[in-house]
Amino acid sequence: MKVVITGGAGFLGQKLAHALLKRGHLIGPSGKEETIDRLTLFDNVAARAPIPGDNRIEIAVGDIADRARVAQMIDGATGSVFHFASIVSAGAEADFELGYRVNLEGALAVLDACRALPHAPRLVFTSSLATYGGEYNQEVDDATPQTPQTSYGAQKTIGELLINDYSRKGFLDGRSLKLPTIVVRPGKPNKAASTFASSIIREPLQGQDAVCPVAAEVRLALLSPRRTVQAFIHAHDLSAQAWGPWRSCNLPAIDATVGEMVEALARVAGQEPVKRIKWQPDPAIQRIVATWPGRFGWDKARKLGFLADNNADEIIRNFIEDDLARA
Amino acid sequence: MKVVITGGAGFLGQKLAHALLKRGHLIGPSGKEETIDRLTLFDNVAARAPIPGDNRIEIAVGDIADRARVAQMIDGATGSVFHFASIVSAGAEADFELGYRVNLEGALAVLDACRALPHAPRLVFTSSLATYGGEYNQEVDDATPQTPQTSYGAQKTIGELLINDYSRKGFLDGRSLKLPTIVVRPGKPNKAASTFASSIIREPLQGQDAVCPVAAEVRLALLSPRRTVQAFIHAHDLSAQAWGPWRSCNLPAIDATVGEMVEALARVAGQEPVKRIKWQPDPAIQRIVATWPGRFGWDKARKLGFLADNNADEIIRNFIEDDLARA
Repeated sequence: MKVVITGGAGFLGQKLAHALLKRGHLIGPSGKEETIDRLTLFDNVAARAPIPGDNRIEIAVGDIADRARVAQMIDGATGSVFHFASIVSAGAEADFELGYRVNLEGALAVLDACRALPHAPRLVFTSSLATYGGEYNQEVDDATPQTPQTSYGAQKTIGELLINDYSRKGFLDGRSLKLPTIVVRPGKPNKAASTFASSIIREPLQGQDAVCPVAAEVRLALLSPRRTVQAFIHAHDLSAQAWGPWRSCNLPAIDATVGEMVEALARVAGQEPVKRIKWQPDPAIQRIVATWPGRFGWDKARKLGFLADNNADEIIRNFIEDDLARA
Repeated sequence: MKVVITGGAGFLGQKLAHALLKRGHLIGPSGKEETIDRLTLFDNVAARAPIPGDNRIEIAVGDIADRARVAQMIDGATGSVFHFASIVSAGAEADFELGYRVNLEGALAVLDACRALPHAPRLVFTSSLATYGGEYNQEVDDATPQTPQTSYGAQKTIGELLINDYSRKGFLDGRSLKLPTIVVRPGKPNKAASTFASSIIREPLQGQDAVCPVAAEVRLALLSPRRTVQAFIHAHDLSAQAWGPWRSCNLPAIDATVGEMVEALARVAGQEPVKRIKWQPDPAIQRIVATWPGRFGWDKARKLGFLADNNADEIIRNFIEDDLARA
């Protein structure tokens, strides 16, 4: 069967694609394991082939809100869609129209393309802990109302609602995962308000300075890219029955302050990298980060068999092993 | 200033229009009371003028998802919008595309028309207790997650999210009200799954038979049209600050079973009308009604000064006084 990853040029799309190509199979719409004979990486720029020369890979470039283009890509051969394409938090806050175009109209284009198929493809959607906020943002768990205080959070919550409704109607078989802060992201800083959480580890480990725009006391819920990719595949292959009447859950995370991350960096790599962190408060970033929950529960994910990292040190060591050593 | 009511041909639109014309003023975008010199009733059919000959009334016919038409209507003179236009629960469940067209694209057309104005109009939106459901539908209050199990519920939840986000960005000054079951609706049965709750009172009081498709033990949260219209105006005139970071609340309701409503009917109008109720179970209606909460809390509305009816007898007497006596 064919698997489509939207946002396939992004780092999570790339890492998932690599894992799926190595693995070679997923549960298909029939409920049985099927071989992946095509893997389409869709994005608004040409994605890199995660395994050069692998002829299962198809690189597709287009606009996620272009319904005709998306419907052409999500065709009758498509058994699974991983819908990751998204304008990130600070980006959607800065450009209101672009955020709604990509995060709402884009999601509708993907869901309606699935709905047009004769079968119900499995669909995994990346939601976010940014869907929580406002009055209910201290102790967050799966039973906390989603009252987001950013456009990105509103758009991701809407995505969850749409996916649940389309799944309930049998048009697709969807699963939304509320991602915590994913650390350590490889590559360069992006427009996500959370980008600093990776920068303060990634740049110093490569001999570069990093800016930390928030205080050391700021508490984050963290998951490594390695565990996140495992979670995507696990979420996909679980049965529809396991999800129950709500096709969403918080992903696992470990709870750490920025200061504790820096201490872990010192334990793993010594004091030199720590000196490269420049503490420069940024009110715009602080305002967004303040709307995120400090601690969050993930009972449903635990029951469903998802796994967290063991500790902050392991998150940093995973990054060195998976990204720095490989590069 | 101009006030626009979408769904102005519907019974709540008509009752609100009548009340606003009698009242003559609302708080404007400036925060001060302003005279209503134009009241536009927009719907897909021509609304009746609630006060014949009143030259403040403008009747507008169009498609709520027609962005150009909606933007033409919500013009620079518009100080307030009451967005009621909606495909009801059983209707949105039966026609998936029509439900999304009216309840999602229609809402976006209204919100984006407001966003295009140089000022931020006040906007009151009718959400619903149908936004609750699934695992969290027994004891529902303002802190219960909205995990709806109908398309209508999903669309209304999305409306709340959009209105909160547009309000947060300063594009409009919105307030969403989660309506309980409104009883007694005048007129004829409609496609709402809850239509029986009015029919079993309304038809017997007029010497006609009524069908009750659910059991006497089914528990409903009820509010009279009279109190609902008072709530629309109260919600509108409250300050933005009073609403806090989430522009939505459950409206007040009294809690009664279908059987208790029938007992109240007997107390108010005797045994003859009660004999006209035919008990004919309908699995499709029962399935939808089963997703609604039996009891629901409205602490935020209480704090904000909204009022419930005193009891079921009063709800029935209000209907006789407001609708049967007037007709």
